[in-house]
Amino acid sequence: MKNVYEIDFKANMSNFGNLVPIEAMNSIPFSVKRVYYIYGVPSGTKRGFHSHINLQQVLICVSGSVKILTKTPSEEEVITLDSPLKGLYIGPMIWREMYEFSDNAVLLVLASEHYTETDYIRDYSKFEILANEYFKEAN
Amino acid sequence: MKNVYEIDFKANMSNFGNLVPIEAMNSIPFSVKRVYYIYGVPSGTKRGFHSHINLQQVLICVSGSVKILTKTPSEEEVITLDSPLKGLYIGPMIWREMYEFSDNAVLLVLASEHYTETDYIRDYSKFEILANEYFKEAN
Repeated sequence: MKNVYEIDFKANMSNFGNLVPIEAMNSIPFSVKRVYYIYGVPSGTKRGFHSHINLQQVLICVSGSVKILTKTPSEEEVITLDSPLKGLYIGPMIWREMYEFSDNAVLLVLASEHYTETDYIRDYSKFEILANEYFKEAN
Repeated sequence: MKNVYEIDFKANMSNFGNLVPIEAMNSIPFSVKRVYYIYGVPSGTKRGFHSHINLQQVLICVSGSVKILTKTPSEEEVITLDSPLKGLYIGPMIWREMYEFSDNAVLLVLASEHYTETDYIRDYSKFEILANEYFKEAN
């Protein structure tokens, strides 16, 4: 779907373990101004429920697994992140929900901007209006 | 010791789980040009055994635990990384060895530069000479 795609990372694998390198502006299409990770999410919890106006992110489940629902007014997709080798790029104007975190899940997120509360859209009906405008202009 | 220090990160903790935000140039003293993570390290494995000339890094064990030995010709320290809230800054000219990775360990590393093979010193006696010069000049 628009503004959402999977990225396959390559690991340097050896008898000493695995190392996955991610180079900003190369493996992913932006400079990393913010990194965060989510862990200790109780079973049954759903998170997210927002879109960003401009922010770009790449999500990687570096331990365990989690499901990510991404959504626009016209498209919807569910992706299971269950490998340190799988990234999910989420660009602007995408509603996201995260659920079915496994017990040991650690979700790493690389983000293109520092935290800015005004970049969040937390109301789905407001999101629908803005996303319809955004994707109409983008066509 | 010089060019090595611990960073305590703050988590946003709630009934929905924990989120640890790290803002480049703010929570850590550099822009993040490269991110990598190490996992699946077999029991008994030791990694590292090098220094960097210029690179700065922050290491965080986001799952499990690992021990980090940092060393100059005149100082030596061992730190156990066992919490997503604990970061270890390692600046230029520090020899590092990583060992006692737990089964489920995921070591996240944020780095100030893209990969450059010429920035590595992999020979300890060469490191001793260069580090002695570096720290003499720095005094």
